[in-house]
Amino acid sequence: MADLQRLSLNQATTQNWSIKEATEGCVRHGIPSISLWRHKIHEVGLGESARLVRDAGLHVSSICRGGMFPSASPVERREKIEDNFRAVEEAAKLNADSLVLVVGASADVPLRDARRMVEDGLAALVPYAQKCGVRLGLEPLHPMYAADRCVLNTIDQALEMASLYSPTEVGVILDTFHIWWDPFVFEQIERVRGRIYGLHVSDWLVPMPDMLLGRGVMGDGVIDNRTLREAVDRAGYGGAIEVEIFNQSLWDTPGDEVLAKVVDRFIALV
Amino acid sequence: MADLQRLSLNQATTQNWSIKEATEGCVRHGIPSISLWRHKIHEVGLGESARLVRDAGLHVSSICRGGMFPSASPVERREKIEDNFRAVEEAAKLNADSLVLVVGASADVPLRDARRMVEDGLAALVPYAQKCGVRLGLEPLHPMYAADRCVLNTIDQALEMASLYSPTEVGVILDTFHIWWDPFVFEQIERVRGRIYGLHVSDWLVPMPDMLLGRGVMGDGVIDNRTLREAVDRAGYGGAIEVEIFNQSLWDTPGDEVLAKVVDRFIALV
Repeated sequence: MADLQRLSLNQATTQNWSIKEATEGCVRHGIPSISLWRHKIHEVGLGESARLVRDAGLHVSSICRGGMFPSASPVERREKIEDNFRAVEEAAKLNADSLVLVVGASADVPLRDARRMVEDGLAALVPYAQKCGVRLGLEPLHPMYAADRCVLNTIDQALEMASLYSPTEVGVILDTFHIWWDPFVFEQIERVRGRIYGLHVSDWLVPMPDMLLGRGVMGDGVIDNRTLREAVDRAGYGGAIEVEIFNQSLWDTPGDEVLAKVVDRFIALV
Repeated sequence: MADLQRLSLNQATTQNWSIKEATEGCVRHGIPSISLWRHKIHEVGLGESARLVRDAGLHVSSICRGGMFPSASPVERREKIEDNFRAVEEAAKLNADSLVLVVGASADVPLRDARRMVEDGLAALVPYAQKCGVRLGLEPLHPMYAADRCVLNTIDQALEMASLYSPTEVGVILDTFHIWWDPFVFEQIERVRGRIYGLHVSDWLVPMPDMLLGRGVMGDGVIDNRTLREAVDRAGYGGAIEVEIFNQSLWDTPGDEVLAKVVDRFIALV
Protein backbone atom coordinates (compact mmCIF):
# COMPACT_ATOMS: atom_id res chain seq x y z
CA MET A 1 0.00 0.00 0.00
CA ALA A 2 1.00 3.63 -0.47
CA ASP A 3 2.95 5.26 2.34
CA LEU A 4 0.69 7.65 4.25
CA GLN A 5 3.66 10.02 4.35
CA ARG A 6 3.11 10.57 0.63
CA LEU A 7 -0.50 11.71 1.01
CA SER A 8 -1.24 15.30 0.07
CA LEU A 9 -4.57 17.08 0.29
CA ASN A 10 -5.26 18.95 -2.89
CA GLN A 11 -7.30 21.86 -1.66
CA ALA A 12 -9.88 21.38 -4.43
CA THR A 13 -11.14 18.40 -2.42
CA THR A 14 -12.25 20.69 0.43
CA GLN A 15 -13.43 23.57 -1.70
CA ASN A 16 -15.34 25.26 1.11
CA TRP A 17 -12.36 25.41 3.42
CA SER A 18 -9.95 28.33 3.64
CA ILE A 19 -6.23 27.65 3.70
CA LYS A 20 -6.32 28.00 7.49
CA GLU A 21 -9.07 25.39 7.79
CA ALA A 22 -7.37 23.08 5.31
CA THR A 23 -3.96 23.24 6.99
CA GLU A 24 -5.53 22.60 10.40
CA GLY A 25 -7.53 19.73 8.91
CA CYS A 26 -4.36 18.16 7.52
CA VAL A 27 -2.73 18.35 10.95
CA ARG A 28 -5.75 16.75 12.66
CA HIS A 29 -5.79 13.87 10.17
CA GLY A 30 -2.04 13.28 9.92
CA ILE A 31 -1.80 14.40 6.29
CA PRO A 32 1.74 15.71 5.80
CA SER A 33 1.36 17.67 2.53
CA ILE A 34 -1.01 20.07 0.88
CA SER A 35 -1.56 21.54 -2.56
CA LEU A 36 -2.85 25.10 -2.52
CA TRP A 37 -5.11 26.77 -5.07
CA ARG A 38 -4.37 30.31 -6.06
CA HIS A 39 -7.85 31.70 -5.42
CA LYS A 40 -7.47 30.48 -1.83
CA ILE A 41 -3.99 32.02 -1.58
CA HIS A 42 -5.40 35.32 -2.79
CA GLU A 43 -8.10 35.26 -0.10
CA VAL A 44 -5.56 35.62 2.70
CA GLY A 45 -2.47 36.81 0.89
CA LEU A 46 0.76 35.06 -0.04
CA GLY A 47 2.65 35.87 3.15
CA GLU A 48 -0.14 34.62 5.40
CA SER A 49 -0.53 31.47 3.26
CA ALA A 50 3.17 30.75 3.64
CA ARG A 51 2.97 31.31 7.38
CA LEU A 52 -0.03 28.98 7.72
CA VAL A 53 1.58 26.04 5.95
CA ARG A 54 4.91 26.61 7.74
CA ASP A 55 3.27 26.79 11.17
CA ALA A 56 1.32 23.63 10.40
CA GLY A 57 4.55 21.89 9.42
CA LEU A 58 3.15 20.96 6.02
CA HIS A 59 5.02 20.26 2.82
CA VAL A 60 3.55 22.02 -0.26
CA SER A 61 3.30 19.47 -3.05
CA SER A 62 2.08 21.91 -5.69
CA ILE A 63 0.38 25.17 -6.47
CA CYS A 64 -2.75 24.96 -8.66
CA ARG A 65 -2.59 26.41 -11.15
CA GLY A 66 -0.95 28.24 -13.98
CA GLY A 67 -1.58 27.74 -17.68
CA MET A 68 -4.80 28.72 -19.51
CA PHE A 69 -2.72 30.10 -22.40
CA PRO A 70 -5.02 29.94 -25.48
CA SER A 71 -7.17 32.93 -26.34
CA ALA A 72 -8.33 34.51 -29.57
CA SER A 73 -7.18 37.87 -28.21
CA PRO A 74 -3.42 38.67 -28.27
CA VAL A 75 -3.92 41.10 -25.39
CA GLU A 76 -5.56 38.41 -23.31
CA ARG A 77 -2.79 35.96 -24.17
CA ARG A 78 -0.21 38.45 -22.86
CA GLU A 79 -2.27 39.01 -19.71
CA LYS A 80 -2.44 35.28 -19.14
CA ILE A 81 1.32 34.96 -19.41
CA GLU A 82 1.71 37.83 -16.95
CA ASP A 83 -0.62 36.01 -14.58
CA ASN A 84 1.54 32.91 -14.94
CA PHE A 85 4.56 34.94 -13.81
CA ARG A 86 2.63 35.72 -10.62
CA ALA A 87 1.81 32.03 -10.20
CA VAL A 88 5.51 31.21 -10.48
CA GLU A 89 6.29 33.76 -7.77
CA GLU A 90 3.67 32.23 -5.50
CA ALA A 91 5.01 28.72 -6.07
CA ALA A 92 8.52 29.98 -5.27
CA LYS A 93 7.43 31.72 -2.07
CA LEU A 94 5.53 28.63 -0.92
CA ASN A 95 8.42 26.34 -1.79
CA ALA A 96 6.10 24.07 -3.76
CA ASP A 97 7.41 20.98 -5.53
CA SER A 98 5.95 22.37 -8.76
CA LEU A 99 3.51 24.77 -10.32
CA VAL A 100 0.75 22.76 -12.01
CA LEU A 101 -0.10 23.98 -15.50
CA VAL A 102 -3.57 23.26 -16.84
CA VAL A 103 -2.77 24.60 -20.25
CA GLY A 104 -6.22 25.83 -21.31
CA ALA A 105 -8.42 25.72 -24.39
CA SER A 106 -10.87 28.00 -26.13
CA ALA A 107 -13.89 27.21 -28.26
CA ASP A 108 -12.92 30.31 -30.30
CA VAL A 109 -9.47 28.99 -31.18
CA PRO A 110 -8.88 26.03 -33.53
CA LEU A 111 -7.29 23.11 -31.76
CA ARG A 112 -3.97 23.22 -33.55
CA ASP A 113 -3.63 26.97 -32.97
CA ALA A 114 -4.48 26.52 -29.31
CA ARG A 115 -1.75 23.91 -28.98
CA ARG A 116 0.75 26.31 -30.53
CA MET A 117 -0.34 29.04 -28.09
CA VAL A 118 0.40 26.64 -25.26
CA GLU A 119 3.87 25.98 -26.64
CA ASP A 120 4.44 29.73 -26.95
CA GLY A 121 3.13 30.40 -23.45
CA LEU A 122 5.35 27.71 -21.98
CA ALA A 123 8.37 29.09 -23.84
CA ALA A 124 7.67 32.53 -22.35
CA LEU A 125 7.32 31.09 -18.85
CA VAL A 126 10.22 28.66 -18.54
CA PRO A 127 13.10 31.18 -18.20
CA TYR A 128 11.34 33.03 -15.38
CA ALA A 129 10.37 29.79 -13.61
CA GLN A 130 13.95 28.61 -13.92
CA LYS A 131 15.20 31.89 -12.44
CA CYS A 132 12.75 31.54 -9.52
CA GLY A 133 13.63 27.88 -8.98
CA VAL A 134 10.13 26.67 -9.80
CA ARG A 135 9.46 23.47 -11.74
CA LEU A 136 6.56 23.57 -14.21
CA GLY A 137 4.30 20.50 -14.28
CA LEU A 138 2.24 20.02 -17.44
CA GLU A 139 -0.97 18.18 -16.59
CA PRO A 140 -2.68 16.31 -19.41
CA LEU A 141 -6.43 16.46 -18.84
CA HIS A 142 -9.03 13.95 -19.98
CA PRO A 143 -9.90 14.29 -23.69
CA MET A 144 -13.45 15.34 -22.78
CA TYR A 145 -11.95 18.71 -21.76
CA ALA A 146 -10.11 19.33 -25.06
CA ALA A 147 -12.68 21.84 -26.35
CA ASP A 148 -12.95 24.18 -23.41
CA ARG A 149 -10.42 23.49 -20.69
CA CYS A 150 -7.19 21.84 -21.77
CA VAL A 151 -5.77 20.96 -25.19
CA LEU A 152 -3.11 18.77 -23.59
CA ASN A 153 -4.71 15.36 -23.38
CA THR A 154 -2.24 12.48 -23.22
CA ILE A 155 1.00 11.75 -21.39
CA ASP A 156 2.86 11.33 -24.69
CA GLN A 157 1.71 14.74 -25.83
CA ALA A 158 2.82 16.32 -22.55
CA LEU A 159 6.16 14.55 -22.78
CA GLU A 160 6.69 15.80 -26.33
CA MET A 161 6.04 19.35 -25.13
CA ALA A 162 8.19 19.00 -22.01
CA SER A 163 11.09 17.46 -23.91
CA LEU A 164 12.14 20.83 -25.32
CA TYR A 165 13.31 21.67 -21.81
CA SER A 166 15.47 20.16 -19.11
CA PRO A 167 13.89 17.47 -16.89
CA THR A 168 14.52 19.85 -13.97
CA GLU A 169 12.53 22.64 -15.65
CA VAL A 170 9.42 21.07 -17.17
CA GLY A 171 7.76 17.81 -16.22
CA VAL A 172 4.39 16.10 -16.23
CA ILE A 173 1.66 15.76 -13.61
CA LEU A 174 -0.17 12.44 -13.80
CA ASP A 175 -3.79 12.31 -12.64
CA THR A 176 -5.50 8.94 -12.67
CA PHE A 177 -8.88 10.53 -13.48
CA HIS A 178 -7.43 11.87 -16.70
CA ILE A 179 -5.28 8.93 -17.84
CA TRP A 180 -6.89 5.73 -16.53
CA TRP A 181 -8.78 4.94 -19.76
CA ASP A 182 -5.75 5.09 -22.06
CA PRO A 183 -5.00 1.71 -23.68
CA PHE A 184 -1.31 2.60 -23.72
CA VAL A 185 -1.12 4.28 -20.31
CA PHE A 186 1.52 1.96 -18.86
CA GLU A 187 3.89 2.40 -21.80
CA GLN A 188 3.44 6.16 -21.53
CA ILE A 189 4.12 6.19 -17.78
CA GLU A 190 7.36 4.36 -18.50
CA ARG A 191 8.31 6.79 -21.26
CA VAL A 192 7.80 9.84 -19.02
CA ARG A 193 10.26 8.48 -16.45
CA GLY A 194 12.48 11.24 -15.06
CA ARG A 195 9.87 13.92 -15.68
CA ILE A 196 7.08 12.88 -13.32
CA TYR A 197 6.48 15.86 -11.04
CA GLY A 198 3.30 14.72 -9.36
CA LEU A 199 0.54 12.12 -9.05
CA HIS A 200 -3.12 12.89 -8.41
CA VAL A 201 -5.71 10.28 -7.52
CA SER A 202 -9.51 10.22 -7.41
CA ASP A 203 -12.14 8.04 -9.12
CA TRP A 204 -14.40 7.93 -12.18
CA LEU A 205 -18.03 7.48 -11.15
CA VAL A 206 -20.55 5.50 -13.20
CA PRO A 207 -22.79 7.14 -14.15
CA MET A 208 -20.88 10.41 -14.07
CA PRO A 209 -23.01 12.99 -12.26
CA ASP A 210 -21.32 15.96 -13.95
CA MET A 211 -18.48 16.33 -16.44
CA LEU A 212 -16.66 18.82 -14.23
CA LEU A 213 -17.81 18.20 -10.67
CA GLY A 214 -18.42 14.45 -10.89
CA ARG A 215 -15.24 12.88 -9.57
CA GLY A 216 -15.39 10.36 -6.78
CA VAL A 217 -13.33 9.32 -3.79
CA MET A 218 -11.02 6.40 -4.58
CA GLY A 219 -13.04 3.20 -4.43
CA ASP A 220 -16.35 4.75 -5.45
CA GLY A 221 -15.71 4.33 -9.19
CA VAL A 222 -13.87 2.22 -11.72
CA ILE A 223 -10.26 3.44 -11.59
CA ASP A 224 -7.61 0.99 -10.43
CA ASN A 225 -5.61 3.61 -8.56
CA ARG A 226 -3.23 1.14 -6.95
CA THR A 227 -2.06 -0.43 -10.18
CA LEU A 228 -1.50 2.99 -11.71
CA ARG A 229 0.32 4.27 -8.59
CA GLU A 230 2.58 1.23 -8.62
CA ALA A 231 3.38 1.83 -12.29
CA VAL A 232 4.22 5.46 -11.53
CA ASP A 233 6.46 4.34 -8.67
CA ARG A 234 8.24 1.86 -10.95
CA ALA A 235 8.87 4.75 -13.33
CA GLY A 236 10.88 6.38 -10.57
CA TYR A 237 8.42 8.69 -8.85
CA GLY A 238 8.50 8.69 -5.08
CA GLY A 239 6.95 12.07 -4.27
CA ALA A 240 3.65 13.27 -2.92
CA ILE A 241 0.34 11.80 -4.05
CA GLU A 242 -2.43 14.37 -4.11
CA VAL A 243 -6.07 13.50 -3.62
CA GLU A 244 -7.91 15.94 -5.88
CA ILE A 245 -11.68 15.56 -6.09
CA PHE A 246 -14.07 18.00 -7.71
CA ASN A 247 -17.47 16.91 -6.50
CA GLN A 248 -20.32 19.09 -5.34
CA SER A 249 -21.76 16.56 -2.91
CA LEU A 250 -18.33 16.05 -1.37
CA TRP A 251 -17.96 19.79 -1.02
CA ASP A 252 -21.30 19.83 0.80
CA THR A 253 -19.98 17.25 3.31
CA PRO A 254 -18.18 18.41 6.50
CA GLY A 255 -14.45 18.62 5.80
CA ASP A 256 -13.42 16.33 8.64
CA GLU A 257 -15.67 13.57 7.31
CA VAL A 258 -14.11 14.03 3.89
CA LEU A 259 -10.55 13.87 5.23
CA ALA A 260 -11.23 10.77 7.32
CA LYS A 261 -12.60 9.01 4.24
CA VAL A 262 -9.72 10.22 2.09
CA VAL A 263 -7.16 8.83 4.54
CA ASP A 264 -8.96 5.47 4.82
CA ARG A 265 -9.35 5.06 1.10
CA PHE A 266 -5.78 6.18 0.42
CA ILE A 267 -4.47 3.47 2.72
CA ALA A 268 -6.82 0.81 1.40
CA LEU A 269 -6.78 1.57 -2.31
CA VAL A 270 -3.77 3.69 -3.32
CA MET B 1 -15.64 19.74 -50.64
CA ALA B 2 -16.96 16.23 -50.06
CA ASP B 3 -18.88 14.61 -52.89
CA LEU B 4 -22.59 14.55 -52.03
CA GLN B 5 -22.66 11.05 -53.47
CA ARG B 6 -20.71 9.95 -50.40
CA LEU B 7 -23.28 11.23 -47.91
CA SER B 8 -25.06 8.64 -45.83
CA LEU B 9 -27.78 9.22 -43.26
CA ASN B 10 -27.03 7.32 -40.13
CA GLN B 11 -30.47 6.56 -38.81
CA ALA B 12 -29.52 7.68 -35.28
CA THR B 13 -29.75 11.24 -36.60
CA THR B 14 -33.50 10.86 -37.22
CA GLN B 15 -34.26 8.75 -34.18
CA ASN B 16 -38.03 9.28 -34.38
CA TRP B 17 -38.28 8.05 -37.95
CA SER B 18 -38.99 4.46 -38.94
CA ILE B 19 -36.92 2.88 -41.70
CA LYS B 20 -39.73 3.67 -44.15
CA GLU B 21 -39.70 7.35 -43.18
CA ALA B 22 -35.90 7.52 -43.24
CA THR B 23 -35.55 5.88 -46.66
CA GLU B 24 -38.22 8.18 -48.12
CA GLY B 25 -36.48 11.15 -46.49
CA CYS B 26 -33.18 10.18 -48.09
CA VAL B 27 -34.84 10.01 -51.50
CA ARG B 28 -36.47 13.44 -51.06
CA HIS B 29 -33.16 15.02 -50.08
CA GLY B 30 -30.92 13.29 -52.60
CA ILE B 31 -29.02 11.30 -49.97
CA PRO B 32 -27.80 8.13 -51.67
CA SER B 33 -26.87 5.96 -48.65
CA ILE B 34 -28.24 5.02 -45.28
CA SER B 35 -27.02 3.30 -42.15
CA LEU B 36 -29.68 1.27 -40.36
CA TRP B 37 -29.98 0.61 -36.65
CA ARG B 38 -30.97 -2.83 -35.53
CA HIS B 39 -33.83 -1.75 -33.24
CA LYS B 40 -35.36 -0.07 -36.29
CA ILE B 41 -34.83 -3.19 -38.41
CA HIS B 42 -36.55 -5.26 -35.75
CA GLU B 43 -39.58 -2.96 -35.78
CA VAL B 44 -40.50 -3.95 -39.34
CA GLY B 45 -38.52 -7.12 -39.88
CA LEU B 46 -35.40 -7.87 -41.88
CA GLY B 47 -37.15 -8.73 -45.16
CA GLU B 48 -39.23 -5.58 -45.13
CA SER B 49 -36.16 -3.48 -44.22
CA ALA B 50 -34.28 -4.93 -47.19
CA ARG B 51 -37.24 -4.25 -49.49
CA LEU B 52 -37.52 -0.64 -48.30
CA VAL B 53 -33.89 0.25 -48.95
CA ARG B 54 -33.89 -1.62 -52.28
CA ASP B 55 -37.07 0.09 -53.49
CA ALA B 56 -35.62 3.47 -52.46
CA GLY B 57 -32.48 2.69 -54.43
CA LEU B 58 -30.29 3.30 -51.39
CA HIS B 59 -26.86 1.93 -50.64
CA VAL B 60 -26.46 0.59 -47.06
CA SER B 61 -23.24 1.97 -45.65
CA SER B 62 -23.43 0.08 -42.38
CA ILE B 63 -25.56 -1.68 -39.81
CA CYS B 64 -25.41 -0.31 -36.26
CA ARG B 65 -24.48 -2.16 -34.27
CA GLY B 66 -22.86 -5.29 -32.94
CA GLY B 67 -20.39 -5.53 -30.09
CA MET B 68 -21.18 -4.93 -26.40
CA PHE B 69 -19.07 -7.96 -25.46
CA PRO B 70 -17.96 -7.33 -21.83
CA SER B 71 -20.07 -8.65 -18.99
CA ALA B 72 -19.35 -10.06 -15.55
CA SER B 73 -21.67 -12.97 -16.39
CA PRO B 74 -20.36 -15.75 -18.67
CA VAL B 75 -23.94 -16.58 -19.69
CA GLU B 76 -24.55 -13.00 -20.72
CA ARG B 77 -21.28 -12.94 -22.64
CA ARG B 78 -22.39 -16.00 -24.63
CA GLU B 79 -25.80 -14.40 -25.26
CA LYS B 80 -24.11 -11.29 -26.53
CA ILE B 81 -22.00 -13.25 -28.96
CA GLU B 82 -25.14 -15.05 -30.16
CA ASP B 83 -26.78 -11.67 -30.71
CA ASN B 84 -23.74 -10.61 -32.72
CA PHE B 85 -24.28 -13.61 -35.01
CA ARG B 86 -27.78 -12.27 -35.71
CA ALA B 87 -26.31 -8.83 -36.42
CA VAL B 88 -23.95 -10.38 -38.95
CA GLU B 89 -26.88 -12.09 -40.67
CA GLU B 90 -28.75 -8.79 -40.85
CA ALA B 91 -25.73 -6.99 -42.30
CA ALA B 92 -25.38 -9.76 -44.90
CA LYS B 93 -29.02 -9.66 -45.91
CA LEU B 94 -28.91 -5.85 -46.23
CA ASN B 95 -25.66 -5.97 -48.18
CA ALA B 96 -24.10 -3.40 -45.85
CA ASP B 97 -20.53 -2.21 -46.32
CA SER B 98 -19.85 -3.33 -42.77
CA LEU B 99 -21.28 -4.18 -39.38
CA VAL B 100 -20.26 -1.50 -36.89
CA LEU B 101 -19.00 -2.89 -33.60
CA VAL B 102 -19.29 -0.71 -30.51
CA VAL B 103 -17.38 -3.10 -28.34
CA GLY B 104 -18.97 -2.34 -24.98
CA ALA B 105 -17.85 -1.82 -21.39
CA SER B 106 -19.09 -2.65 -17.94
CA ALA B 107 -18.61 -0.86 -14.64
CA ASP B 108 -18.56 -4.35 -13.07
CA VAL B 109 -15.61 -5.57 -15.14
CA PRO B 110 -12.06 -4.23 -14.70
CA LEU B 111 -10.83 -2.39 -17.77
CA ARG B 112 -8.16 -4.87 -18.77
CA ASP B 113 -10.55 -7.82 -18.39
CA ALA B 114 -13.16 -6.01 -20.46
CA ARG B 115 -10.63 -5.47 -23.22
CA ARG B 116 -9.79 -9.17 -23.19
CA MET B 117 -13.51 -10.02 -23.41
CA VAL B 118 -13.70 -7.83 -26.50
CA GLU B 119 -10.79 -9.68 -28.08
CA ASP B 120 -12.47 -12.99 -27.26
CA GLY B 121 -15.82 -11.84 -28.61
CA LEU B 122 -14.23 -10.64 -31.82
CA ALA B 123 -12.38 -13.94 -32.23
CA ALA B 124 -15.69 -15.81 -31.88
CA LEU B 125 -17.38 -13.55 -34.42
CA VAL B 126 -14.85 -13.25 -37.24
CA PRO B 127 -15.20 -16.75 -38.76
CA TYR B 128 -18.98 -16.43 -39.02
CA ALA B 129 -18.77 -12.91 -40.45
CA GLN B 130 -16.21 -14.11 -42.97
CA LYS B 131 -18.52 -16.98 -43.97
CA CYS B 132 -21.42 -14.52 -44.40
CA GLY B 133 -19.28 -12.05 -46.34
CA VAL B 134 -19.65 -9.33 -43.71
CA ARG B 135 -16.83 -6.99 -42.79
CA LEU B 136 -16.55 -6.05 -39.10
CA GLY B 137 -15.80 -2.41 -38.33
CA LEU B 138 -14.35 -1.68 -34.89
CA GLU B 139 -15.34 1.79 -33.79
CA PRO B 140 -13.16 3.49 -31.19
CA LEU B 141 -15.36 5.69 -29.02
CA HIS B 142 -14.36 8.82 -27.14
CA PRO B 143 -12.45 8.07 -23.92
CA MET B 144 -15.30 9.52 -21.85
CA TYR B 145 -17.22 6.33 -22.67
CA ALA B 146 -14.50 3.92 -21.49
CA ALA B 147 -16.26 3.11 -18.20
CA ASP B 148 -19.71 2.21 -19.41
CA ARG B 149 -19.98 2.02 -23.18
CA CYS B 150 -16.81 1.17 -25.04
CA VAL B 151 -13.34 0.13 -23.89
CA LEU B 152 -11.93 0.71 -27.37
CA ASN B 153 -10.86 4.35 -27.35
CA THR B 154 -8.18 5.20 -29.89
CA ILE B 155 -7.49 4.40 -33.52
CA ASP B 156 -4.16 2.79 -32.62
CA GLN B 157 -5.88 0.49 -30.16
CA ALA B 158 -8.49 -0.51 -32.74
CA LEU B 159 -5.77 -1.11 -35.32
CA GLU B 160 -3.87 -3.31 -32.89
CA MET B 161 -7.00 -5.39 -32.35
CA ALA B 162 -7.90 -5.53 -36.03
CA SER B 163 -4.39 -6.50 -37.09
CA LEU B 164 -4.88 -10.07 -35.94
CA TYR B 165 -7.21 -10.48 -38.92
CA SER B 166 -7.14 -9.83 -42.65
CA PRO B 167 -7.84 -6.25 -43.83
CA THR B 168 -10.89 -7.66 -45.61
CA GLU B 169 -12.26 -9.14 -42.38
CA VAL B 170 -11.79 -6.54 -39.65
CA GLY B 171 -11.33 -2.80 -40.05
CA VAL B 172 -11.91 0.44 -38.22
CA ILE B 173 -14.75 2.96 -38.26
CA LEU B 174 -13.56 6.54 -37.78
CA ASP B 175 -15.94 9.02 -36.17
CA THR B 176 -14.79 12.61 -35.88
CA PHE B 177 -16.71 13.10 -32.61
CA HIS B 178 -14.61 10.37 -31.03
CA ILE B 179 -11.18 11.12 -32.47
CA TRP B 180 -10.96 14.88 -33.14
CA TRP B 181 -9.22 15.71 -29.85
CA ASP B 182 -6.35 13.25 -30.28
CA PRO B 183 -2.96 15.01 -30.55
CA PHE B 184 -1.74 12.19 -32.78
CA VAL B 185 -4.91 11.68 -34.82
CA PHE B 186 -3.36 12.36 -38.22
CA GLU B 187 -0.52 9.89 -37.69
CA GLN B 188 -3.05 7.29 -36.56
CA ILE B 189 -5.30 7.86 -39.58
CA GLU B 190 -2.27 7.25 -41.79
CA ARG B 191 -1.35 4.09 -39.88
CA VAL B 192 -4.84 2.61 -40.26
CA ARG B 193 -4.65 2.93 -44.07
CA GLY B 194 -6.16 -0.10 -45.78
CA ARG B 195 -8.48 -0.86 -42.87
CA ILE B 196 -10.77 2.17 -42.89
CA TYR B 197 -14.30 0.82 -43.26
CA GLY B 198 -16.26 3.98 -42.59
CA LEU B 199 -16.24 7.63 -41.60
CA HIS B 200 -18.81 9.31 -39.36
CA VAL B 201 -19.13 13.07 -38.92
CA SER B 202 -20.92 15.33 -36.43
CA ASP B 203 -19.74 18.05 -34.07
CA TRP B 204 -18.64 18.63 -30.47
CA LEU B 205 -20.76 21.31 -28.83
CA VAL B 206 -19.40 23.77 -26.24
CA PRO B 207 -20.74 23.54 -23.66
CA MET B 208 -21.79 19.94 -24.12
CA PRO B 209 -25.49 19.63 -23.25
CA ASP B 210 -25.26 15.91 -22.44
CA MET B 211 -22.47 13.33 -22.55
CA LEU B 212 -24.55 10.95 -24.66
CA LEU B 213 -27.12 13.06 -26.47
CA GLY B 214 -25.13 16.24 -26.89
CA ARG B 215 -23.64 15.97 -30.38
CA GLY B 216 -24.14 18.76 -32.85
CA VAL B 217 -24.61 19.16 -36.60
CA MET B 218 -21.33 19.90 -38.37
CA GLY B 219 -20.54 23.58 -37.96
CA ASP B 220 -22.28 24.00 -34.61
CA GLY B 221 -19.22 22.97 -32.61
CA VAL B 222 -15.44 22.88 -32.64
CA ILE B 223 -14.55 19.90 -34.86
CA ASP B 224 -12.70 20.59 -38.10
CA ASN B 225 -14.55 17.89 -40.04
CA ARG B 226 -13.11 18.87 -43.42
CA THR B 227 -9.48 18.56 -42.40
CA LEU B 228 -10.17 15.19 -40.82
CA ARG B 229 -12.15 13.98 -43.87
CA GLU B 230 -9.33 15.03 -46.17
CA ALA B 231 -6.84 13.13 -44.03
CA VAL B 232 -9.06 10.04 -44.15
CA ASP B 233 -9.31 10.38 -47.93
CA ARG B 234 -5.53 10.69 -48.22
CA ALA B 235 -5.27 7.45 -46.25
CA GLY B 236 -7.14 5.77 -49.10
CA TYR B 237 -10.76 5.83 -47.98
CA GLY B 238 -13.29 6.81 -50.63
CA GLY B 239 -16.48 5.29 -49.25
CA ALA B 240 -19.60 6.61 -47.62
CA ILE B 241 -19.54 9.34 -44.99
CA GLU B 242 -22.25 8.93 -42.39
CA VAL B 243 -23.78 11.82 -40.50
CA GLU B 244 -24.50 10.39 -37.07
CA ILE B 245 -25.88 12.78 -34.47
CA PHE B 246 -27.30 11.83 -31.10
CA ASN B 247 -29.06 14.95 -29.92
CA GLN B 248 -32.41 15.19 -28.21
CA SER B 249 -33.27 18.64 -29.58
CA LEU B 250 -32.42 17.48 -33.11
CA TRP B 251 -34.66 14.45 -32.59
CA ASP B 252 -37.45 16.83 -31.59
CA THR B 253 -37.06 18.72 -34.89
CA PRO B 254 -39.04 17.65 -37.98
CA GLY B 255 -36.96 15.15 -39.96
CA ASP B 256 -37.09 17.10 -43.22
CA GLU B 257 -35.64 20.17 -41.51
CA VAL B 258 -32.87 18.00 -40.10
CA LEU B 259 -32.04 16.45 -43.46
CA ALA B 260 -31.98 19.80 -45.27
CA LYS B 261 -29.54 21.12 -42.69
CA VAL B 262 -27.43 17.96 -42.83
CA VAL B 263 -27.11 18.22 -46.63
CA ASP B 264 -26.19 21.93 -46.49
CA ARG B 265 -23.62 21.48 -43.77
CA PHE B 266 -22.17 18.40 -45.41
CA ILE B 267 -21.55 20.35 -48.61
CA ALA B 268 -20.22 23.41 -46.81
CA LEU B 269 -18.15 21.81 -44.08
CA VAL B 270 -17.27 18.19 -44.84
